Amino acid sequence: MRVALGLEYDGRFFEGWQSQPSGRTVQDHLEAAVSSFTGEKIRAVCAGRTDANVHASGQVVHLDTGVQRLEVSWVRGLNSYLPNTMAVRWARYEPEDFHARFSALSRTYEYWIDNEPVRSPLLNGRTGWVFRPLDEKQMHKAAQCLVGEHDFSSFRATGCQSKTPIKNIEFVRVVRHGRLIKIHVKANAFLYHMVRNIVGCLVYVGTGSRQVEWLKEVLEAKNRDAAAPTFYPSGLYLTSVEYPQQFEIPVNPTSEFFI
Amino acid sequence: MRVALGLEYDGRFFEGWQSQPSGRTVQDHLEAAVSSFTGEKIRAVCAGRTDANVHASGQVVHLDTGVQRLEVSWVRGLNSYLPNTMAVRWARYEPEDFHARFSALSRTYEYWIDNEPVRSPLLNGRTGWVFRPLDEKQMHKAAQCLVGEHDFSSFRATGCQSKTPIKNIEFVRVVRHGRLIKIHVKANAFLYHMVRNIVGCLVYVGTGSRQVEWLKEVLEAKNRDAAAPTFYPSGLYLTSVEYPQQFEIPVNPTSEFFI
Repeated sequence: MRVALGLEYDGRFFEGWQSQPSGRTVQDHLEAAVSSFTGEKIRAVCAGRTDANVHASGQVVHLDTGVQRLEVSWVRGLNSYLPNTMAVRWARYEPEDFHARFSALSRTYEYWIDNEPVRSPLLNGRTGWVFRPLDEKQMHKAAQCLVGEHDFSSFRATGCQSKTPIKNIEFVRVVRHGRLIKIHVKANAFLYHMVRNIVGCLVYVGTGSRQVEWLKEVLEAKNRDAAAPTFYPSGLYLTSVEYPQQFEIPVNPTSEFFI
Repeated sequence: MRVALGLEYDGRFFEGWQSQPSGRTVQDHLEAAVSSFTGEKIRAVCAGRTDANVHASGQVVHLDTGVQRLEVSWVRGLNSYLPNTMAVRWARYEPEDFHARFSALSRTYEYWIDNEPVRSPLLNGRTGWVFRPLDEKQMHKAAQCLVGEHDFSSFRATGCQSKTPIKNIEFVRVVRHGRLIKIHVKANAFLYHMVRNIVGCLVYVGTGSRQVEWLKEVLEAKNRDAAAPTFYPSGLYLTSVEYPQQFEIPVNPTSEFFI
């Protein structure tokens, strides 16, 4: 049987999603918990592989098991084996044609920036930090050229395993909530480091060191060297993954933690 | 010269405010940073001593120094010596009659509860957690009997050093923000564990295991045994301390981090 799981984790405490010999990744902890719960050795497949220090409130995972339990028992059972910095939010049996990665129609990320002169200990590891004042309206304006289907090679890190640099962004919204700025972006899929590379460029626009029009030039260059450096991982959250309705995957409400 | 400092810290990473032989308290880190910055051995006095795992966004501290620097240099200088989990937000020279503890007119605390069936890794260590549904309106109603001047012995932990159990609560407000519940309380001063003991009782009311009227009985009993157990430290924030206007101490905006 195939089981889908909704995962939340604080990325500070893991070396990213993907299994490593260290055993300190999200995948390693999850698979160890499943093994304790079911007695099976299984592999978990996720919707979006996150890097070290990147968080998730709406990661989706699937795995195959011979063990039948109530869905609520999967949640409680796995959580009893997981560290406090990681939890299963829901579990659902799915048909065999459900695939956490390949069935996904879209992914949504939020990037949070703390825009204050003094760094915040309470937001440490939970947001990016920019001490110079950011103009979020200019950032929002600049970002709109990214909406739609484009070749995002300028925002693609080396090591990216995607077959194509062409992705479709449904929206990018930049909004301020007091001292915090949220960059909210939804696309069918993302290239490696794509959100953090976009955020790096938007910060250049927000501080005024680049003009609004510059982002279009970066996009059209189709060249990583045209863009700003990759922004910190600490402000990035995978907040939701969308699937065809027939799978009835729970939709994660966004923006739960900061606004 | 007397210098006042505004402090923010994530209580998870410290063994409370008060200096300990371990050196792992807020006071120890602050005094070590001051010593590195000024070359002086000084003692810092705070407005409200916080326990291990209790946070502060608006702690106020004073210290006496022979070193004259710009106020902004105190902020930048001390922050360069402090861990990421702690920061000085502002610094101000004050007259000798300013005292972080004795000049304070009031303290304001917020207690945040995550009210969800599944514990949240992203809120781990940052909120209390109640998995049973809480009725925040009943909690708010119950809390109103605490407003005003009362003998709060029922909410006083052993080891409390206050001269009197009589304190004056200006307001207690219980509000829901989505899955989170905020208990906001302002008083001239608090007894040891007073907020956490009040929260413990309000949770009893919120889950329905006690009636609204019960809180008045607890208060009138003037006996610690009448109240609920002390609630977790992890949801508690010292958010601001108020002083006579002549000292021009910056007012900390509340509710910055969750709503």
